[in-house]
Amino acid sequence: MRIRPLGDRVVIKRIEAEETTKSGIVLPGTAKEKPQEAEVMAVGPGGVVDGKEIKMEVKVGDKVLFSKYAGTEVKMDGEEYTILRQDDILAIVE
Amino acid sequence: MRIRPLGDRVVIKRIEAEETTKSGIVLPGTAKEKPQEAEVMAVGPGGVVDGKEIKMEVKVGDKVLFSKYAGTEVKMDGEEYTILRQDDILAIVE
Amino acid sequence: MRIRPLGDRVVIKRIEAEETTKSGIVLPGTAKEKPQEAEVMAVGPGGVVDGKEIKMEVKVGDKVLFSKYAGTEVKMDGEEYTILRQDDILAIVE
Amino acid sequence: MRIRPLGDRVVIKRIEAEETTKSGIVLPGTAKEKPQEAEVMAVGPGGVVDGKEIKMEVKVGDKVLFSKYAGTEVKMDGEEYTILRQDDILAIVE
Amino acid sequence: MRIRPLGDRVVIKRIEAEETTKSGIVLPGTAKEKPQEAEVMAVGPGGVVDGKEIKMEVKVGDKVLFSKYAGTEVKMDGEEYTILRQDDILAIVE
Amino acid sequence: MRIRPLGDRVVIKRIEAEETTKSGIVLPGTAKEKPQEAEVMAVGPGGVVDGKEIKMEVKVGDKVLFSKYAGTEVKMDGEEYTILRQDDILAIVE
Amino acid sequence: MRIRPLGDRVVIKRIEAEETTKSGIVLPGTAKEKPQEAEVMAVGPGGVVDGKEIKMEVKVGDKVLFSKYAGTEVKMDGEEYTILRQDDILAIVE
Repeated sequence: MRIRPLGDRVVIKRIEAEETTKSGIVLPGTAKEKPQEAEVMAVGPGGVVDGKEIKMEVKVGDKVLFSKYAGTEVKMDGEEYTILRQDDILAIVE
Repeated sequence: MRIRPLGDRVVIKRIEAEETTKSGIVLPGTAKEKPQEAEVMAVGPGGVVDGKEIKMEVKVGDKVLFSKYAGTEVKMDGEEYTILRQDDILAIVE
Repeated sequence: MRIRPLGDRVVIKRIEAEETTKSGIVLPGTAKEKPQEAEVMAVGPGGVVDGKEIKMEVKVGDKVLFSKYAGTEVKMDGEEYTILRQDDILAIVE
Repeated sequence: MRIRPLGDRVVIKRIEAEETTKSGIVLPGTAKEKPQEAEVMAVGPGGVVDGKEIKMEVKVGDKVLFSKYAGTEVKMDGEEYTILRQDDILAIVE
Repeated sequence: MRIRPLGDRVVIKRIEAEETTKSGIVLPGTAKEKPQEAEVMAVGPGGVVDGKEIKMEVKVGDKVLFSKYAGTEVKMDGEEYTILRQDDILAIVE
Repeated sequence: MRIRPLGDRVVIKRIEAEETTKSGIVLPGTAKEKPQEAEVMAVGPGGVVDGKEIKMEVKVGDKVLFSKYAGTEVKMDGEEYTILRQDDILAIVE
Repeated sequence: MRIRPLGDRVVIKRIEAEETTKSGIVLPGTAKEKPQEAEVMAVGPGGVVDGKEIKMEVKVGDKVLFSKYAGTEVKMDGEEYTILRQDDILAIVE
């Protein structure tokens, strides 16, 4: 990946999933609300951020859930990414 | 459970309860206001969060009360969960 | 009581009092503005809350005054309670 | 006094004063804007409040000036009091 | 002066000045915008305020400039004063 | 200069510059948007400000860039100045 | 460069790129939304900023991504720059 995030920031790429609703109708990716699942593409070095020692807990390739309104969207080489702070990542999906 | 929360975060699942009002009418789950009772499904490791040492006080299986507007709702495998910080859990119901 | 509050939280139950106005008219509980007096039903363990050591000053059975807009209302077994932080309790009524 | 404030809180009672305007017209208490002068009725113990050591500087009987919008108004035994933090008291009137 | 400010607070009295505009027109005090110059009437003792040691830098009689929207206006004996924190005083006019 | 700023405050005077636009039209000072360049007229002593040690980095005569909405404007002897905190100065122009 | 930023501030210059959309249409710089990529033109010395030790991680010539709404725009010698804090730089583009 060409982006190297600073501090406690993480670059993620949303996973657009097809989903079958309870009633059995398949909703293709674009017809649903913005997905909150993403894959980690790059992880900052952590260290002292805003006066506090931050240890990075996620790694490249992790599937994560994140706050829908967190971070900043950037476009690189025609692809959309979100750059957010590790603290805006809610959980790792296993 | 497939979700592993980070830091002081907790994954809960709302308990939708049937309730008998004082006048004796039974309100099924969907007709009532959003319930605030939930079961703990997964608990983060705690540790240093935002520069402060956090000790996790709740454990998987606990019934808890939480602030109705706290946390983020996520959908996994057709089920709805809420991921919130332990501090948004008000009390354990025994 | 079945609710065990976490950290510096306190469970209180409002005291709905009849009151005689200066002009001598009795206002029954429901006709008045929301009362601010309450009885303490359960007290959290205190300890380190948000990085600060909190010592609990109120105990079960205390009559207290609290900020009208503080805390979260919960319904348990048909009764209404308020769960708030000890810091939102203004004074003990003796 | 029956109210015992917690922490750095102070119970005050507004002094409603008659005042003669420069033009010589007497404005009775109720016709003026809310007075900002008050008498201290009860003083909390101070101590560690929100992680900081607070020493109480006012005492019962002091006449004080306070921020008009500070604190919470409570009614006890038909009398109106304001409970505020000592930091919302601007000055002592001698 | 009858007002003794608490902590890092300062009592000031605005100086209403007549001013000659560039075009030579004299604007009497009341026709101009609220003046920002004032004289210090009383100074609090300083000390630990909000967990920080504050040393008072102004003294009674100093002419000061202050933020127009800072502080609280009080009326004492028919005179208007402003009580503000020393930090809202911008500069001393020599 | 007659103004002695307190703490980490700095007194600056805007530099109203004539500017030639790319198309070659000269915009006199008053027709442009508020300039952000200024000259430092007076510098406070620094020291402990709001609990933090501040070292002053600018000196009288420096040309600086500042946040357009920062600080407070004051008029002294018919001249307009801005008093702001050193932290609102973005850069020194050399 | 003639601008020397203070503290943890960084001067950047936006890179206006031509871009080919997926459908193959070329959007010249001015027709697109504000670009978020920039080149670092000058870097402040870091040091203690707002009570916290800041180490500068970017250097002159780095290509960076930044929050679109961060910082202050300044015009110098007919060129537009943005001055922002290092913390508003999201990532370095390699």
